[in-house]
Formats: sequence, structure tokens, C-alpha cells
Amino acid sequence: MSKTFAGNFFEDFRIGQVIKHATPRTITEGDVALYTALYGPRFAINSSDEFARSMGLARAPVDDVLAFHMVFGKTVPDVSLNAVANLGYANGKFGVPVFPGDTVTTTSTVTGLKQNSNGKTGVVYVNSVGKNQHGQVVLDYTRWVMVNKKDESKPAPEAVTPNLPSAVPADQLHVPATLKVENYDFVLSGEKHTWGDYEVGEKIDHVDGMTIEEAEHQLATRLYQNTAKVHFDQFAANQGRFKRRLIYGGHIISLARCLSFNGLANAFKVLAINGGSHANPTFAGDTIYAYSEVLEKIELPGRSDLGALRVRLVATKNHPAADFPYKKDGKYDDSVVLDLDLTLALPR
Amino acid sequence: MSKTFAGNFFEDFRIGQVIKHATPRTITEGDVALYTALYGPRFAINSSDEFARSMGLARAPVDDVLAFHMVFGKTVPDVSLNAVANLGYANGKFGVPVFPGDTVTTTSTVTGLKQNSNGKTGVVYVNSVGKNQHGQVVLDYTRWVMVNKKDESKPAPEAVTPNLPSAVPADQLHVPATLKVENYDFVLSGEKHTWGDYEVGEKIDHVDGMTIEEAEHQLATRLYQNTAKVHFDQFAANQGRFKRRLIYGGHIISLARCLSFNGLANAFKVLAINGGSHANPTFAGDTIYAYSEVLEKIELPGRSDLGALRVRLVATKNHPAADFPYKKDGKYDDSVVLDLDLTLALPR
Amino acid sequence: MSKTFAGNFFEDFRIGQVIKHATPRTITEGDVALYTALYGPRFAINSSDEFARSMGLARAPVDDVLAFHMVFGKTVPDVSLNAVANLGYANGKFGVPVFPGDTVTTTSTVTGLKQNSNGKTGVVYVNSVGKNQHGQVVLDYTRWVMVNKKDESKPAPEAVTPNLPSAVPADQLHVPATLKVENYDFVLSGEKHTWGDYEVGEKIDHVDGMTIEEAEHQLATRLYQNTAKVHFDQFAANQGRFKRRLIYGGHIISLARCLSFNGLANAFKVLAINGGSHANPTFAGDTIYAYSEVLEKIELPGRSDLGALRVRLVATKNHPAADFPYKKDGKYDDSVVLDLDLTLALPR
Repeated sequence: MSKTFAGNFFEDFRIGQVIKHATPRTITEGDVALYTALYGPRFAINSSDEFARSMGLARAPVDDVLAFHMVFGKTVPDVSLNAVANLGYANGKFGVPVFPGDTVTTTSTVTGLKQNSNGKTGVVYVNSVGKNQHGQVVLDYTRWVMVNKKDESKPAPEAVTPNLPSAVPADQLHVPATLKVENYDFVLSGEKHTWGDYEVGEKIDHVDGMTIEEAEHQLATRLYQNTAKVHFDQFAANQGRFKRRLIYGGHIISLARCLSFNGLANAFKVLAINGGSHANPTFAGDTIYAYSEVLEKIELPGRSDLGALRVRLVATKNHPAADFPYKKDGKYDDSVVLDLDLTLALPR
Repeated sequence: MSKTFAGNFFEDFRIGQVIKHATPRTITEGDVALYTALYGPRFAINSSDEFARSMGLARAPVDDVLAFHMVFGKTVPDVSLNAVANLGYANGKFGVPVFPGDTVTTTSTVTGLKQNSNGKTGVVYVNSVGKNQHGQVVLDYTRWVMVNKKDESKPAPEAVTPNLPSAVPADQLHVPATLKVENYDFVLSGEKHTWGDYEVGEKIDHVDGMTIEEAEHQLATRLYQNTAKVHFDQFAANQGRFKRRLIYGGHIISLARCLSFNGLANAFKVLAINGGSHANPTFAGDTIYAYSEVLEKIELPGRSDLGALRVRLVATKNHPAADFPYKKDGKYDDSVVLDLDLTLALPR
Repeated sequence: MSKTFAGNFFEDFRIGQVIKHATPRTITEGDVALYTALYGPRFAINSSDEFARSMGLARAPVDDVLAFHMVFGKTVPDVSLNAVANLGYANGKFGVPVFPGDTVTTTSTVTGLKQNSNGKTGVVYVNSVGKNQHGQVVLDYTRWVMVNKKDESKPAPEAVTPNLPSAVPADQLHVPATLKVENYDFVLSGEKHTWGDYEVGEKIDHVDGMTIEEAEHQLATRLYQNTAKVHFDQFAANQGRFKRRLIYGGHIISLARCLSFNGLANAFKVLAINGGSHANPTFAGDTIYAYSEVLEKIELPGRSDLGALRVRLVATKNHPAADFPYKKDGKYDDSVVLDLDLTLALPR
């Protein structure tokens, strides 16, 4: 019997199946430093213990998107090792902040299964919940992936598609009770714009571009213990469709979020990932740009000091975002690589 | 109104203007590990908590040049986003050591302005002071940059050039009072040469070479939260003068300082950056070499155990430094990329 | 007199000579994060403080192979700066675990010398011992390298070859007394296979491949403060035999060990490096695969809960390991780059 695990195939998943993922992960200041080196984030709350303390936290929490990667990474060996494509995200709710020293584990539940008409692949929906060492939820989200069948003769399961909200409702957004912005320093934070300054429909070109190197996305993806082989094996890629190592989609999420500092510097916290898709693949050598569009202004229950913006964060490749490329006839522009629907917290 | 900040242009600066820079930064063991991976420093005081304790410090301080990068990085969005060139450094005085856990902020004062005769650009002098969370100065230095005008019709300001010393005077050099070298271990430090072994005029070829990769300088520059786009955006660079991403000049300073260990292993502390200029640009693929020339031997007031050397640290590209290339007819040799005037502390 | 040290040549070594190596090194969480980013290790004991505590340790120890690199790195400036080739390892015994915050120093003793018949080079055997700040041994191993003579006219020393065991005997394997596996979680560890599930002669293809980038091996090698110039200087390499920067052999050891997780996830600790050789050089762009062969099952004295496997860990380049390439007519297959003989601990 082979000792090596080849990953789950479509027919290995069952509705209601619970998968406790391997390799718990203590997140450290070392991970934070690498995250800074990989993407250049400048949000003051994550960069400075002093600034975080002025906001009522014990110290600087790790970037929300880094927490996302750590929770996500654990799911890959069980969920998406045989994935053809990572199709989408929905209903992602961030819980308690993650601090250096916290240990994160992830458990997933299969909530949807739908075999494709070709009989060769199927879509698997998993709800993944990341918790810290105290059992507190740090992230709860659903993603769906297209997974290969191993044995095409296996019968298709009954099609089940989970009921997913188009956006996380305001009353399910988690804001730490101790978080305060009365001492928030708008000079140290980098911009003066508050929640009230943004308007629905407003688009913000984040201006800067970042060119990705092979070493960078590999370092990042290994840091998250994401093992999907398409990101690492050029020898195999030479025989594949793209002839290139594919960049982990989450790498683009982090680049776009960090680029968005310029124009959204006070959107200091990601409260929710309402939805998202990787519109086109990216490869080393691509230069990533980003823009945001304000979709909705949200009042946060019980908080007169904070508001939330629902924002579409779009990343493009090799195409500065000044003309805000998006979809044409329902199809993504070739330059669009990420379409992410986020809810962000800002001081009012 | 655009939410994005395009950076200051020449006409936006005023003599006496004080700029408190954004994004305070807690420096951690993670940053130190990255610094080690990026440059390979081997100075024992920064590498070992035990060695640092033997010298009277609480633990290993971070490399002085890493502290410089952190203080410098904060100034970029406000001072040099629209810079054409980073022209020079002067009067750089290191203060208290920076330890992991310290949070650094930077404030700059405009001390000089001089429009160029072409009317399109001008030189801006800023004195930048980095402080830790206790308000103690960690670095105080002046740099000057050539900055674009946005509106060429704006009148030229009165030309003001600050009075800068050619070197930081001995009585302004800061040596921590608790620092002691009576237990200094010349085996663990890597060399036996003390202050007395160096002579004015002596040149030391540091022998080794380091080839720079795109991923490396990008990781470094983002780690310092230095946002200058010329370092990151290959798509834009394709339309530019060099067709390449330009390497942050500070990356070369760190490489040269780390190469200088071989021959200056006991020059454990940078006391001052007396002056410096980036003589030629560097690009990924260049191999950096370095040599030092002893310019001056300095007695440190009140310290019979320590002495200082004023040293010219020169970095070259694609040209081993054995023949000590420098200037010809007042012009830098094409191979010279860095001309740095440092004051270094050594045991006597 | 030159201040720069050019490294020792063959005629500089004497039997019995003791070399205390420079630059003590405090290992931190930052180093661990970089190690994760460089290789993607997933062994739970090193990844999670909580998991390590469940095994009776104070917190997550650093990966054994990272400890090896740190101990090894210190020896390079004195032992192998003028090495032609790193010929082999033997009798490597890991001692107490290394935790973040520990400071490691290395001392080597010359135990063998043998001039080659060409009179130009010789083989130097050194026994290197790495200790932590409490003087406890963390690693004790022998390696031998081929070193250039500087002055070929110097007489050959009497040939001495140390007596080295083919494998570390079971009674010399160090297992921390407090280490326990009664609460070992075989879900979080990633696999269910225990010591009893492995058979002598069994071969395990570790399936995944990792392509190496120049920036990655340079970052790694500098992190270990390994200064061998062949890894860093492309300008010099252009005049050399390979025209490429050579990858530090230890980089391949780490890649192979991390790939071996898939099939050996519960082999949580390296107890010994019985032997090893770098069969062929590797360069950036090579894709590394690995397989293991179980050579021996070892009972650990006084431990009914743990067993050890002696395993041959083979790494290949640009050749998936499914057909287990090794030697033909006593000569390594061209695809084989590492042949490592390890003793690993597993729960029974």
C-alpha cells in the first residue's frame, strides 16, 4: 500500500463530510516580516504595536489576509490537490484577530457537490473554519473548486448547492469589542479620509504596480503551507497547458489589498470576503495593478465610531488600472485577474 | 477628489516645513532574519544575544543599516515619490540602538530648496529624525533628492542650502554608555584586528561578490516599506529610460557593509554616515564587490577601550575591487556604484 | 599585511587542530519563518507550539535540518572556503532540540588528512560540534572536503583517515527524555502510518517537485551565514567550470526532507545523519524530487512508544522519482543529486 496521499478526488467527497486538516500552525513575527517583504503592507495597525495599542489591542494583529492564507493553506492537501480550478469564495467572515504566537487549525465541511456534465470533474463546496488555540473562530468562509474524478464510472452524487448570501449581513460582521478609534492618528495612518468621505460608485485607482518574481510567489505559497503542485513544479509545467508555474490566487489578493493602501489607508480591517473569483491566471513577470469601487456604505450595529465599506477590489495584470477595466458582455476583460468583494472597516 | 496621494512635487515643499511620516514600524526578529537572508551579515553583536550581552547590551541590537532603512523607508511616500534621483546623504548620526520590539517613527524637516536652471526640477534637502517608542533618537540624517515640479510655471523659491559638516565631529558620535568590550571575544568575532591595527590610507579589498536577483531587492525594499515605484514596476520600466527596475540604493549599502565584514569584522557599529552617493545605478544580475579605505583614526571622547575609524566604503558592480576603482578626472569609474563615508567603532 | 582572510588551505590543517568558529548565532522565529517559506515543511512538531507541547516540549523546536545548517554554516569560512568539493558526511548525531532564542556556536577538530596523488589538493576530515548557550550539544558530525593546496611544494602530511561508523548505533541516538507521544494526534500530523507500518526495503516516492530559483538558494545560504563564494558570485562563475552559481548542497537536503513529509509525515525527528553525499551539482531552474527507501528498523533503547527507521533519502533533479533512480555499476544516475542516510524517529 502506498504511503503517499494523492489527495481526494471528486468521488471521495460526501455532503456533510467533516475534514480536520493537518499541520496546525503557530503564526509568528517571522511570518509577519515575510508578509511585509512579500507585499509591502503599510496599514499602521498591523505595522506598529504602539499604534495597535492606541486602538485598544494588546499588540499588532497579523494582517487579515495573512490569516486567510494560513487558514486556507491547511485545506489544500485535502480539498484541492486535484483541483482543476479554484472557482470562488463566499460568505467569508473574519472573527477574532490573530496575534503572533497564536496557533491556527482548520476544519472543513463539505456543503455542496455537483458533477459536471462531462462526467470527468465536479464542483466541491467546502465551508472552512479556522480557529485559534482557544477555540475562537478567526475565519469562516466557503470556497468552491472544480476537482477531477479519478474513476469516471463512479455515479454522480445528488447535486447539492449551498445557499450562500451575496454579501455577509451587517449583523454578522465581527468587530472586536475593545477596538477603539478615539485616539486614531490620521497622520501616522497615512491618509485623512474617513468613512464619510467615500461615496457609493466611487472608483479609486491605486496607481502603483508590482511585478511578480517566481521566487516571491513560491516563498509566499510555501509560507502558507499550501502544497498545490502547480505553483512549484516547472518540470511538470513544461508538459502542461500553460508551460508555466501558476501563481497562487491568494498571492494576487495580498498584492491587491496592499496596493489599495494608497486611497484606502484607513480601511484598516477586512471584516468580510463576500465573494471573489480569480478571473484569469497570473504568471511570474506579470505586473499587478489594482482599483477599488465602493459598492455600499454600511452602518455597523452599536458602533458610531466605525463604519464599513463594501468594496469591489479588482486586480489587473500588465494594464494600469486608471481606466478601471472589468467585464464586457458579462465576460472579464483579459487584463482582469481578481474580482474580490470585501467589507472593510474604517473610522467615521 | 482623488483619494490617492500622488506624492509631493518640488513646489509643494517649504523651508522649515515639518513632515511627520506615516506608518510607524515595530521592528522584529522576523525583520532581522530577513536582513540576514538578504545580505548575510556576520557581525557577532547583531547575530548573537549572548555576544551582545557580553558587551553590556540587553540582547542583540538590529544592524545599524537595517535601522537606517526603516527610518528612511517612511520618508519615501512624502519626500521622494516623484524624485528623479537620490543625490546624497550627510551628517547621519546613529543614536540609541534599536532592539527587536522597538517601534520607529520618522519626522522630516525641509532644510534646503534649490530649483534647477531647467525649471523642471529642484533639489530638496530634508533632515529626517527616526525615534523609538520612548522618543529616543535612533538616527538623525540629512539627504537631498532631485524632485520633479508638477507645474513648471510656479515661481522658484529662494535658494537655500543647509550648512552640512563634511563629517560628524567626534563629540557628536553616540556610543551607548553601557557598551563595554572588556569581554569581547576576538575568536567569536571572526578577526583579531583592533583599532590600532588600521592605518590611514590603508585600503582593504573585501574580496567576495554578491549577485543580485530581482526577487531579493524587491523583498528588501518592501520590507522597509519603501514604496518608490521604480523598484517594483517592470511594466512601467519598459517605457522608461533603463528598461529595467532600478535597485534601491540602500540595498547596495547593506551589501557593501556586509561584504566589509571580511577585513573589518570588529568594526561592529556604524556611528555615523558622514556622506554618501549612489555613483551609478544597479540592476538585477549585477554582482557587487566592495573595498574600504581608512580616511581617519578618531579617538572617542571618554573611551579608552574603543576607537573609531572614518572609512570610505566603495561598492563596485561586475568588477572585483582588487584594483580599488574610484574616480578619474573627478568622475566616478563606471564600475563604482556606491561611495559611502562612514564612521565605525572598534575595540582598541 | 592584508586584513582579509583568504581561508585555510590544505597545508594549514593539522591533525588534532581545534578550530572555534566565529559568529555565534541566536536562532529566532524569524529564521523558522524563512525556513518555512524556503522549503514548505509541514511536520506538526515544528509548525505548532501547541502540538509540540502535546509532545512534552516547551514549544515548537526548530527543524533539525535548520539546526544542521546553522551549525554547518559557521564552519565554512575556516574549513571549506577553498574547498573543491564537499565529499561526504558521517556519524551525525543530533543532541538536544534547538528552540527559538537559543544561541549556537560550533567548534571543529581536524580528524583526518590525506593529500591527493596529484599533489594539488587534499582531503580534510573535520568533526564539528554545535552547542547551545548552555553548552549542550545540538549536533555532532563529521564531514570531509577536498581542499586546494596553496603551495604545492609543501610536503604531504602523514595520511590519517578517521574511523567512522557506517551508521550511528542505536545506543548513541539521543531522544529527549521528556518527549512523549501518548497524546500524538495522527489527524493533525497529516498521516496515520506508524513505525510498525514500514518495512525494510520499502520505497516511497514522495511525488511532489520543487523548482529552485537563484534568489531562493541565495537567501537560504546567507541565512545560514554560509559564505562559500561559489553560491553567490555569478561574475566569477562566468569564468568557472559550470558558468553558473552552484547551489549549496544543504539546500537540497532541506528540500528532500520537506518533500518526504508526503509518506513520512510521522517521522517527526531526525536522530542521525549516518552518511551522505552530493552526487551531482544542482543549479537554479532544476526541479527537485525525492524518494525514500527503508534500510533498517531500529528499536530505541528504553522506549516502547517510539521506534526509529534508517532511511535512504534520495533527491533527483528534473526526473520524477517514481522509478527510484540510484546507482548503475557503482556510479550514480545522472539524475541523482543527493544520497542521504538518515535515522528518523516515529511513534510506534
